[in-house]
Amino acid sequence: MTGSSRLDAVVDRIAPLDAAAMAAASARLDRLTKPPGSLGRLEELAIRLAGITGRSDAGTRPRTIVVAAADHGVAARGVSAYPPDVTRQMVANFLAGGAAIAVLARLLDAGLVIVDAGVEGHGPFVGRERQPGPFAPGPSVEFRSTGRGRATADLSVGPAMTRVAALAAVEFGLDLAADLADRGTALIGLGEMGIGNTTSAAALTSALCGAQPDAVTGPGTGLDEAARLRKVAIVEHALAVNRPDPTDPLGVLAALGGLEIAVLVGVLLGGAASRVPVVLDGFITGAAALVAAAIAPDVTARLIASHRSAEPGHAVQLERLGLQPLLDLELRLGEGTGAALAIGLLDAATSLRDEMATFESAGVAGRPAPAGTTARRARS
Amino acid sequence: MTGSSRLDAVVDRIAPLDAAAMAAASARLDRLTKPPGSLGRLEELAIRLAGITGRSDAGTRPRTIVVAAADHGVAARGVSAYPPDVTRQMVANFLAGGAAIAVLARLLDAGLVIVDAGVEGHGPFVGRERQPGPFAPGPSVEFRSTGRGRATADLSVGPAMTRVAALAAVEFGLDLAADLADRGTALIGLGEMGIGNTTSAAALTSALCGAQPDAVTGPGTGLDEAARLRKVAIVEHALAVNRPDPTDPLGVLAALGGLEIAVLVGVLLGGAASRVPVVLDGFITGAAALVAAAIAPDVTARLIASHRSAEPGHAVQLERLGLQPLLDLELRLGEGTGAALAIGLLDAATSLRDEMATFESAGVAGRPAPAGTTARRARS
Repeated sequence: MTGSSRLDAVVDRIAPLDAAAMAAASARLDRLTKPPGSLGRLEELAIRLAGITGRSDAGTRPRTIVVAAADHGVAARGVSAYPPDVTRQMVANFLAGGAAIAVLARLLDAGLVIVDAGVEGHGPFVGRERQPGPFAPGPSVEFRSTGRGRATADLSVGPAMTRVAALAAVEFGLDLAADLADRGTALIGLGEMGIGNTTSAAALTSALCGAQPDAVTGPGTGLDEAARLRKVAIVEHALAVNRPDPTDPLGVLAALGGLEIAVLVGVLLGGAASRVPVVLDGFITGAAALVAAAIAPDVTARLIASHRSAEPGHAVQLERLGLQPLLDLELRLGEGTGAALAIGLLDAATSLRDEMATFESAGVAGRPAPAGTTARRARS
Repeated sequence: MTGSSRLDAVVDRIAPLDAAAMAAASARLDRLTKPPGSLGRLEELAIRLAGITGRSDAGTRPRTIVVAAADHGVAARGVSAYPPDVTRQMVANFLAGGAAIAVLARLLDAGLVIVDAGVEGHGPFVGRERQPGPFAPGPSVEFRSTGRGRATADLSVGPAMTRVAALAAVEFGLDLAADLADRGTALIGLGEMGIGNTTSAAALTSALCGAQPDAVTGPGTGLDEAARLRKVAIVEHALAVNRPDPTDPLGVLAALGGLEIAVLVGVLLGGAASRVPVVLDGFITGAAALVAAAIAPDVTARLIASHRSAEPGHAVQLERLGLQPLLDLELRLGEGTGAALAIGLLDAATSLRDEMATFESAGVAGRPAPAGTTARRARS
């Protein structure tokens, strides 16, 4: 029980994986012209997709990458190598198509939904209606806004946001996931942007995994060791001031989170409830997954871990979630770039499942000869 | 000096990487809207492509996957879980489009060249002209044959082939690589098929890396431990009978190799001489790379290791070659499937390099603020 009947209803819809669909997918894979299991983790992916969706022929199109962006009050503490203005500048870059995730979304034919969850500095909002502002959506890129238009408070001196604000952002994510599911979206990838958000993610990870701040606080966009140690001290301060209770995940999220992370928590839970596979990215989306899993433990089986980030706390998150990433390319950009690359592997897994010949159809000898007998037949 | 003036001339053309092109690619990457180095190994790939091709804007299209197939006399010893007929059946499956590599080649828009380097059981050849046989090329798939039409001899009782036969197969690969380069091929992926060929690859790896046969002989397509131990004994026997001299790589190839491996050695060397990046697959293509590197050490800088195979000897090869694979998906199929998946990552690396905005063009603050100063400015 989260204290929100809306959220509780979504959590109740998160079902265990569909075992029958997984068995059907597995049987199909074993009839294909290859030694059983020889496609390794691609076979595991095809089976996982079946379990999540309940369909042994689950596809990967259309797919959408949701990039949530927000500013963080703690950024003013110098926890990032970049100034806070960069959040807003990068949202413009997402919408203009020049950011890394925009390039990869085009390459992979994925839709891109950019969510302004609380970015400082753009025009005013009247009610839920957004006035003309500096962000103009480009082709195949969709812009959404929670209408907040400002950063969280500094989590090192008190809660980052109120519980009401956190829940509103989560519910925004639930709505977005429901919209995407209604449109028939086959896969949702997650991404994020927010100067200062590795500090928030480190605090969340420490609180929810019981890890020491020093073990989960990394260089982010490029801090040197002295600056990283100052960041560790800020995370320690945030934990001491907020005293997060890990049995109250919404409270932890409000105290230590970011607005983009809260939106992603909603997308994760909403996607899981609608049986849409959700592909994680790196350390920030991993923090959102920790919060979502603390609210609804069954969500983790419905997630796909795309890559292992170079950020050290990411491994701690993945271990806690029990997820094994597909890629280890030393990425540390975020934005959903790792999720996008993993979508390419999901395409490969489903294409192989659907298009490979079976032993019967191709006339290939599929029954392994008992080991050793071939030699005896041929040579004795 | 290899004893072949033709091969020596190709080896002489294998140049060191182009440092100027690498520096230009690196400078370009650092202007893009991301923290320096945050795209990790994708940046390394873009720089490596520049070094190999001499062009900082090297592309990935058109690309071709060369799948060489051959039979192995040693297969009659029961070293595989599958009967030798499967080599021929799978070549037909490649050409018909139902094999895993055919599916991935379509997905990635890669050409497929299937080379019959010595497959048992298809029709006779007259001179270099092939009579109508059972293999009919499918669309976008090209068939080539060395015209040999039979397996190697059993390497556990003597040399697998003569030195002349090995050199002929290598030269066939040189010709193929030259053809592909002439057509403007931007990338060559390698793949193979041959029942029994993990035994040959294990023997080559042991001979060229000085590794114990037990450490480099794996389950292949699915041997149980008892059968694997019999395979180890066969590899040990092959080494004892043939006494390979690692300073004579062509002699090692003739004694312990396969005809498909010899063709791949030629493709590797020819691709390197023509500055076309060559993407390795798993354990069999790794054995070909060991032979090629023993002939021409500079070849390794021009190779891209796609994945780490589940076959245990592959790690030994990669360490010897000094290559770090991009993927670790527990694949153990061969055919070029790992190479194909890596081509997807190369596409991502080059698209990011070409299509991302620069800090200047996007109006993003690119100069990191000295760590700590932002907090002082904002708070003091």
